[in-house]
Amino acid sequence: MSLIESAILNRPLGNLLADQLEAVSTLFEKHLASNDEDVNNLCMHIERYRGKMLRPTLVLLSALAVSGSSSKEDLDDRHRTIAAVVEMIHMATLVHDDILDESEVRRGGATINSLHGNEVAVMLGDYLISKAFHLCSTLGDPSINLALGEVTNILCEGEVIQLQRRNDIEISESLYLDVVGRKTGSLIGACCQMGGVLGGGTKEHCDALQAFGQDMGIAFQITDDVLDLFGETAVTGKSVGRDLDLGKMTLPLIRLRNELNAEDRSKFDVVVQSRDRSGLQDLLDASKALNSTMQAACDIVIRAKSRLEILPDGPARDLMLDLSDGVLTRHS
Amino acid sequence: MSLIESAILNRPLGNLLADQLEAVSTLFEKHLASNDEDVNNLCMHIERYRGKMLRPTLVLLSALAVSGSSSKEDLDDRHRTIAAVVEMIHMATLVHDDILDESEVRRGGATINSLHGNEVAVMLGDYLISKAFHLCSTLGDPSINLALGEVTNILCEGEVIQLQRRNDIEISESLYLDVVGRKTGSLIGACCQMGGVLGGGTKEHCDALQAFGQDMGIAFQITDDVLDLFGETAVTGKSVGRDLDLGKMTLPLIRLRNELNAEDRSKFDVVVQSRDRSGLQDLLDASKALNSTMQAACDIVIRAKSRLEILPDGPARDLMLDLSDGVLTRHS
Repeated sequence: MSLIESAILNRPLGNLLADQLEAVSTLFEKHLASNDEDVNNLCMHIERYRGKMLRPTLVLLSALAVSGSSSKEDLDDRHRTIAAVVEMIHMATLVHDDILDESEVRRGGATINSLHGNEVAVMLGDYLISKAFHLCSTLGDPSINLALGEVTNILCEGEVIQLQRRNDIEISESLYLDVVGRKTGSLIGACCQMGGVLGGGTKEHCDALQAFGQDMGIAFQITDDVLDLFGETAVTGKSVGRDLDLGKMTLPLIRLRNELNAEDRSKFDVVVQSRDRSGLQDLLDASKALNSTMQAACDIVIRAKSRLEILPDGPARDLMLDLSDGVLTRHS
Repeated sequence: MSLIESAILNRPLGNLLADQLEAVSTLFEKHLASNDEDVNNLCMHIERYRGKMLRPTLVLLSALAVSGSSSKEDLDDRHRTIAAVVEMIHMATLVHDDILDESEVRRGGATINSLHGNEVAVMLGDYLISKAFHLCSTLGDPSINLALGEVTNILCEGEVIQLQRRNDIEISESLYLDVVGRKTGSLIGACCQMGGVLGGGTKEHCDALQAFGQDMGIAFQITDDVLDLFGETAVTGKSVGRDLDLGKMTLPLIRLRNELNAEDRSKFDVVVQSRDRSGLQDLLDASKALNSTMQAACDIVIRAKSRLEILPDGPARDLMLDLSDGVLTRHS
């Protein structure tokens, strides 16, 4: 069981959330179903990608947090629909990211691209995106459609920029943070914001929720990047070492390069360009880059938590604070 | 100049449509623009994919056809917005199809996948889909969002089914027509239907327009499949012979296989499985499959035209009838 799931089940809102997420899963599966067997078989395969359901959880918690509620009466079909929509968008990004990263393993299972080829993965991702927008449209609320379109625009821009900057060894920390904010922060931020809006939150509360989710996404991605450098597939459940293989400069590498003297920096450049993981390990072991990167993620989580101070006290807000701590220690 | 463009310019509605399509292009470019240079450079490249703008043209003509109007006063921002939206969806399918088909040439230029790799093509296609849904949402009309989501669901299903049936040499004509209807017919049908709805057409008129577009798309795709077998890149402006290379059984091949005796069918199966284009040519030359396939496309165009009989007389309807004839003779 993941850290986030256990955090939820041990809390007052545990049962409520477990029931709601079950309903979200049912909606997700029902809306994804096709009358074609081939399509359904592929959809069943990606069901296993669904792990912690962090994004649906944040939609539901944000909706409760704006009023301090802990009552299931304050959650309705609209909340569960948006929760399923964001999970579909997230699944689509995983399926397409695995093509980009040539990943073979995800949540301990073979990826769609490795099983069925890139072509099927492209189309299955498109199917998920289409289904997500369609499900969102069933709510009949143009402002939510517009918000979803805005966040996917930003997300795709982040992906394109990151791709175009592969092998750019001199990428700056600010560009890295910008890309990560777009790629990972934007959707999590939108989950919190849309949940807040559906919960009847004030603009101030919804903006704070957006900022919280945006920060949480950035911290999440930084941790992910560190795990890609040091993790093992058996622990993370997905392919590791891909960032270096693909020439992606992540925060620990950017910080390492910045702290090196001219001679070591030349060595670093050779090591990265030749995808030499053990040579990189030696340089990292002798540096403070890893510590400072994890400290940066930690600082961002502290900032994220401070965003929620303006929300009313309540179990949903408390659980969101716990979840943000979990970002730093997941997979451990 | 393509046949469709010259057909338009020689008609009473020519100038009106040329002006409207110019406005649609401006909207398309404006909405696609990003504040990131890398993203904009990629978008500029795909601008050249935009040729005949058949789908935007059909949105605009359908809006006029339901009332028999030929006045630009009957076209407003909503029509031009939907015209730009369907063109974005179409561009996205081209970018992603080129990955699926490993195509190197499109409209006489290098494809995104061949220039920048599959990864960039995946993300650029996603960016186009996202921008299309976002632009559609700016209209604030949930029913149009829902209609767009429905058509992209069907389109993606068609793509997945086609992919999963690659190398299925025994595919039936009815499954082929079902896939082509979903893949190509659905979007063109939706262009005509949405145009009709925006033009204030009755349900009967809009359904007839949808059926017209659906048929036109199917005839278009059959012609495309014939051109892929016999065309030359210099004429079609795109890679040819890809269907055979990729194990796609298209209508001429299905009809050829069905008319062969057991001995020749075994020969056919070997020729197709070994991607032997000249061996295939010999079998096709000795058969009626090509003629019967073009006749099938012709019959579908006749059926498409009959769908429009219930619409009021007018120059827009007349032009749509001409455009449907053009489907059979394009690229020639």
